[in-house]
Formats: sequence, structure tokens, C-alpha cells
Amino acid sequence: MTNLINNIQSQTAKIGIVGMGYVGIPIALLYAKVGYLVTGFDIDKNRVDTLNSGKSPISNFPDDDIARAIKNGLCVTENMKLISDMDVIIICVPTPLTKQRDPDLTFVINTVEVISQHASKGTAVSLESTTWPGTTHEVIRPIFEKKGFVIGQDLYLIYSPEREDPGNRNFSLHDVPKIISGETSACLELAHVIYRQIVANTVALSSTQAAEMTKLLENIQRSVNIGLMNEMKIICSRMNLDIFEIVDAAKTKPFGFAAYYPGPGVGGQCIPIDPFYLTWKAKEHGLHTRFIELSGEVNASMPAYVVEAIIRALNGNGLAIKNSSILLLGLSYKANINDVRYSPSIEIIKILYEYGAKMEYSDPFWREFPPIRDQTIRLKAVNLTPELINNYDVVVLLTDHKDYDYKLLTEHAKLIVDTRGKFDFNASNVVRA
Amino acid sequence: MTNLINNIQSQTAKIGIVGMGYVGIPIALLYAKVGYLVTGFDIDKNRVDTLNSGKSPISNFPDDDIARAIKNGLCVTENMKLISDMDVIIICVPTPLTKQRDPDLTFVINTVEVISQHASKGTAVSLESTTWPGTTHEVIRPIFEKKGFVIGQDLYLIYSPEREDPGNRNFSLHDVPKIISGETSACLELAHVIYRQIVANTVALSSTQAAEMTKLLENIQRSVNIGLMNEMKIICSRMNLDIFEIVDAAKTKPFGFAAYYPGPGVGGQCIPIDPFYLTWKAKEHGLHTRFIELSGEVNASMPAYVVEAIIRALNGNGLAIKNSSILLLGLSYKANINDVRYSPSIEIIKILYEYGAKMEYSDPFWREFPPIRDQTIRLKAVNLTPELINNYDVVVLLTDHKDYDYKLLTEHAKLIVDTRGKFDFNASNVVRA
Repeated sequence: MTNLINNIQSQTAKIGIVGMGYVGIPIALLYAKVGYLVTGFDIDKNRVDTLNSGKSPISNFPDDDIARAIKNGLCVTENMKLISDMDVIIICVPTPLTKQRDPDLTFVINTVEVISQHASKGTAVSLESTTWPGTTHEVIRPIFEKKGFVIGQDLYLIYSPEREDPGNRNFSLHDVPKIISGETSACLELAHVIYRQIVANTVALSSTQAAEMTKLLENIQRSVNIGLMNEMKIICSRMNLDIFEIVDAAKTKPFGFAAYYPGPGVGGQCIPIDPFYLTWKAKEHGLHTRFIELSGEVNASMPAYVVEAIIRALNGNGLAIKNSSILLLGLSYKANINDVRYSPSIEIIKILYEYGAKMEYSDPFWREFPPIRDQTIRLKAVNLTPELINNYDVVVLLTDHKDYDYKLLTEHAKLIVDTRGKFDFNASNVVRA
Repeated sequence: MTNLINNIQSQTAKIGIVGMGYVGIPIALLYAKVGYLVTGFDIDKNRVDTLNSGKSPISNFPDDDIARAIKNGLCVTENMKLISDMDVIIICVPTPLTKQRDPDLTFVINTVEVISQHASKGTAVSLESTTWPGTTHEVIRPIFEKKGFVIGQDLYLIYSPEREDPGNRNFSLHDVPKIISGETSACLELAHVIYRQIVANTVALSSTQAAEMTKLLENIQRSVNIGLMNEMKIICSRMNLDIFEIVDAAKTKPFGFAAYYPGPGVGGQCIPIDPFYLTWKAKEHGLHTRFIELSGEVNASMPAYVVEAIIRALNGNGLAIKNSSILLLGLSYKANINDVRYSPSIEIIKILYEYGAKMEYSDPFWREFPPIRDQTIRLKAVNLTPELINNYDVVVLLTDHKDYDYKLLTEHAKLIVDTRGKFDFNASNVVRA
């Protein structure tokens, strides 16, 4: 262990990052920047080639940053045998849900199985994926133990949840305190040494379970508060009140209020998924996660609510959705990023498609309609001109990218359905949804 | 109206405050301090006499402050006829629930009826009580109109919700931005002039309904987040995790997380009550406030949860609650204030009483057991000595007043049930509830 600590502190330790996506890339870039030899592992050959050619597969990360890291010694590979060379391995693979909405640990388990086959004695392994409390202890530890590793002695097992907020430029990975935990006190000590090379502060938890729960709590609170604001939006709308005005007013209270905003639903890889990891685990203890289930239900119902608002708005002009021309603004699940995973925009497109709408879209991040899993509908992208805007029966704002010209849209759209509170609540051509 | 504005700005306007409690007293003190002649109105003769003698009826406000205001011209009275002398009337009466948990506007309506009988033309009337959206417009405005007042012309009707946080010394009334709204634009303009004399910033809302909803949203969010943390506490407890450690860890995230803590339930005049004002009004629109109802249910179930934890803890020592000696720490609903209204401590005392417990209590704010509505149980206060602490079968921490000597309690209590996360989670004599 002293050897490993020395190697880390002298920057001669080799760092392996498994899963080169939203979470893995920034960690790899940071270790490479500090001066480590970093190896990125990914099962996607395209992604491996893109990264090795100095290009970014994700718009959040500029090509330049990738190119510089590659020059500094970042190497990306599909070859998992290289795991044996690593001193520190950080696992950043996805933890999705199955179709039945249970936790799907396939990526984590497969990764850990492979690592357990190749890892050398004295390696530190850290899991960053969000998961249910007990995963590290009950699932991952036994895999290593089966291969003969003594945890805390010849393999150091760490859980340190990622806290990425895609598109948030106010906080860099370095400045966000890093939750760390270990299966033994030696593991925890190593977690501290490993992460202090790239972040300013670490926060040690008493167990890997506590660290796993901490990450879930962060996302559960977000899901519940967005759900609450979505419910409040529906109530405000029925009372002819503007929920965005009200949240902004409440937010002027300097204590005890945290601003969350309603929207057309929730998306991305975290909020719609992570909370249900706890729901699943709680059942083992005979408990129901009622706030999670309620917010899941409310948030999942928002796309249908938006479609209903479109129906009402068009109906006011004597139109059905069928054959109406609809311009959709925004495919990604939140503003100013390109991520369309689990985006409510896609859900809304599916419903409108079934209704027979004629849809086009505009999104500064997608000049062509992105490939989406289990999804065959493809829409045409358009450039927004006054004439074109005026041609649509209704314009629907789904994602409030900063690039949209809201003034232009207000002036030329016949009818606007606004899910983001960007248009004048009292304008005669604006309907909130 | 110009006259009234001039009088306010030159501090010659007479200010009347109706309801001299947690909300009315600080407003009266602030106007008196600035230099206005202030008249406080209250229906409670005892309270009127206490205040006029320069004494404080509420521990949050020091006697000195009251005495100084009285010297500066604050006068308190039961005589509502003096309303006719007032230029500005601020209503700070309670808005409780009926026994069936519907809004009870009796105090507001009675107050407004009396004001409408006595008010002179050109008076400004501001309601500060928390209430359902539409109260000012649908209930209060018609009362004045029936007496012939033209709103916005010879009576200015304002809604400006109080934002008191008893015991919070970080923010003075002057520093907390004040939400203002008016039934007409003239009313809103006056609201601005009136409140800018005592607060640094006003936040104008588009309607009295929007301002009413803003205040409800603030308290609804609090109720829901505390409910969520109470649910998470139960889950954590079953998984043998410390919810306080987890909230404190999550709170190190510099964005997107707001710390709320679980407890033995919710109390005070706001959180257990205000949200249900919206529940009631939403029904008129055929809507259910599901987050409010769920948090109400979870929060209301916490006293029984605490009692269950006491049962389990005593049971571990082979004891029943019946005839066990129990020391309760803290009667008020939150730390460092004396307010026992709707306190979960009282609920817990009631249940333990039914079980036949032998209870005593210690609370730095109550040397004698306070009078509580519909409540006949009275407990004996004790001074905490090592011997005494050691004598109880169990010590239950209900309110985490800063005056308690937690070290002394840890060292001498046989058994501690801790609802506030103040004792070592791993100590053998500590049980979390």
C-alpha cells in the first residue's frame, strides 16, 4: 500500500478509466492534465477511435481538450487485458434500468468480472456509478473475493459517486467536493490519496453504503422537487397563475427555499432512473419509497400533459393535431447540452406522431435528427426564419436553449406552447404547458 | 393617494397593526423604531396589558425592544374603534385549520369586517396572513365593497405575506425581501411605499393571487422536503445507515441540493397548516395536491414512529412503556424557541401518556409545563444532574436546543432515543428515531 501511495503521489501510478462517457472523460482529462499516464477503456470501437484521433464524442467536451490529453499520454483502448498494468482503476459505466424498471447492473458486473480476471495484486478499484446502497459490499466485493483477492490488503475497493452536472459551467470537477468511501480503512485512505490529485476536497463517509445512499439522496431530492413543481404548475395553470413568476418570487427568500422549475418531464441518465434503484432495494426491507414513486408518476405524466395543452391550443384555432404543422424547439432533456437520452421531447414526439402531426424541429445541437434507441421516427431540422415560423400551426418550446431567438418567435409564431416559461404569460398567442 | 404617500414618506402616517403576535410584533417594533406612531390591536386583554407595560409576551422578542417601542410611541389596544384614525392597517392574525382540516378564515374575516366598519376613506389595508390564492380578491375585497369602498380609489387593498422564521437570527425582517401585491396598480404602488419604510427590498407580484400562492409554495416545499427526509430516515434506519451523516454529505454538493433534516414530526403555525390551504382550494378546480397530502401523512406519522422506537429501545432492556421512567428533552417544535403550538413533542407525550409512561421533561424555555389547547396532561420539569439522568429508563431527545449538555447526557443516560441526530450513531446506548 505504501508503494501504491508513493506511486500515486509521485504521479507514476497508471490510471485506468473504464467507460469513457459523460463521467469517465472528464476524470481521464483531469488525471492526464495533472501528469499521469491514463488509459481509457471502452467497449465501443467508434468511441475509442474518435478519442484516440483527438476528437470528442460528446459536445460538452471540446475537441481541443481531448487532443491535448492524447498528446499528454491519454490512450484509449478496447483491450481489457491492459487492466493488468493499471495501479488505479476507476469504473464509470452506466447503471440503467431494465424494461421492468429494476436496477440493471449488467455493465458494472461485467466490468468488475473482467477487472477481477486481469487486475494485479495491490490495485485500487473505485466505482463511480450511481447504484443502490450495498452494491459495492454485496455485489462487487464478492466478485473480487472469489478470485482470491483480500480486500483492503491486495485489492483496495472504493466507492466514490460521480457528481457531474452536464452543461453546468459554474463548477469544475476539481471544485466539487468528492464523496469517498472504502470497504476498509485502508481502502478509504487510498480513496483520499487517489482523488486529492484531481479535486480540491474529499468528503469521507463511514461506509460504501452511506456513500451510495448519499448520491441517491441527491438525485431523489431533485426528482421529488421537480415533481412537486410539476404538480404546482398544473394547479397554477388551472388558477390562471404563472408558476415561473411564483418560483422566482419564492426564490427571493434568502433561507429555506430552493428554486426548482417545472418542465415537460424529466430526462437524462440520472433523474428518471437513479431514484428507482432505492425503490428496488427498499422493497427488500418491506418499505415503499412513496415520494420517489409519486414524483416518478407525476414527472412521467408531463409529456402527456404537454400534448393535451397542444391539443387545447390547436383546438382554440379549430384545428386537430392530425395534419397540423408543429415546430418543436429542443430535443435534449435540458438546456444547452446535446443529451437526448430519456428526453421528454422524444416522448412528446412519439405521442404527436401517433396523433398524425406533421412535425419539424430546430435544435442548435442537432442539425440532423439524432439516433435514439428503440426509436424510428426521424424529423427534419429547419432554420428559423420569420416566414417559416409563421407557417406552423403551433410552435412548442420543449428545451430552453439559450440560442433561440425568443423575440423573433414571439413576433412571428401564430401560436406558442411554452413548457419553459420563456414567453410572456399574458400574450394572446402563448399557452403555458 | 398623493396625500397618503406623502404622509407615509414624511413618517406622519399612523400605522395600525392588527394581531400582536409572532408576525405583528416585529412589524410594529420596526415602524416604531423608524419613527412612526404605531397602534397595535389585539383581542387578548392580557397581551395588550403585557405589551403596554413594556414586557414581551413571546420569548423571541426581548423586553427591552418592547419597552423602547412603547417609549417611542407604540400603543397597544383592544379598542377597534381606533382603526378610524389609522392611515395604514396591517393585518397579522392567524389562519389556522378547522378540526376537519379546512381553512379557518374566521380571524381574518372578523378583523376585516371590523376594519370595514371603522376605516376612513383613503386608508391602505394590507393582509400578511398566509392563505389560499384568491382570499384577498374573493373574500376580503367584497367585504370592503359592500361598505361602499371603491378599491384602489378610497381604499387600497394589499397582500404581502409574512416571511418570519422564528429563532433565525441570520436574517432580520429588514433584510428579507418583502413580497408585495395589490388589487389595483395604485394598491401595489402604495404597498411599495409602505413596506420600503421598513424593509430593504420589495418584490412586486402581478396579482394578490400570485403573492398568496408564493407564500404557500415556500411552505409547501418545506413540508414536502421534510416529509421526504422523514421517509428517507425510515429507510436509512432499516438499512442501518445514519440519515444525518448522509444529508450532511449530500449538502457538500455546491449545486442542486438543499439540506432539510428529518425529525419527530413537524410543528408550529406554518408547516403543518399552510399547505392544506392549497389542498382545499385546489379541490374547487378538481385537482388533488398529492405531494402535500403525502408529506402531511408522512410528517403526521412521525410521532407514532418515535414512540415505536421508544418501545423497541425499552423492549431491548426487557421493559414495557407502562411504568417506565422517561425523560423528554424539548417541548417546542424546533430548536431554540419556546413555541409549542402543534409541537410533535406534545403528540408524543399524549401517546406515551396513554401507554402509562412516567414522564418528566427538561426544556430551557419552559420551567413550568406550558398551557396547551385541548390538553390536560402536565409534566414536571427537572434539572439535569448526572444522577437524575442515570435514573431514567430512557431519555428521548425531541428538540435539539443548544443549551442541552449532550456530552453529559451521553455519559450518564442508560438509553437515549435521538430524533435529532445529536448523539453518536454507533454508541451502544443510542437509538435513532
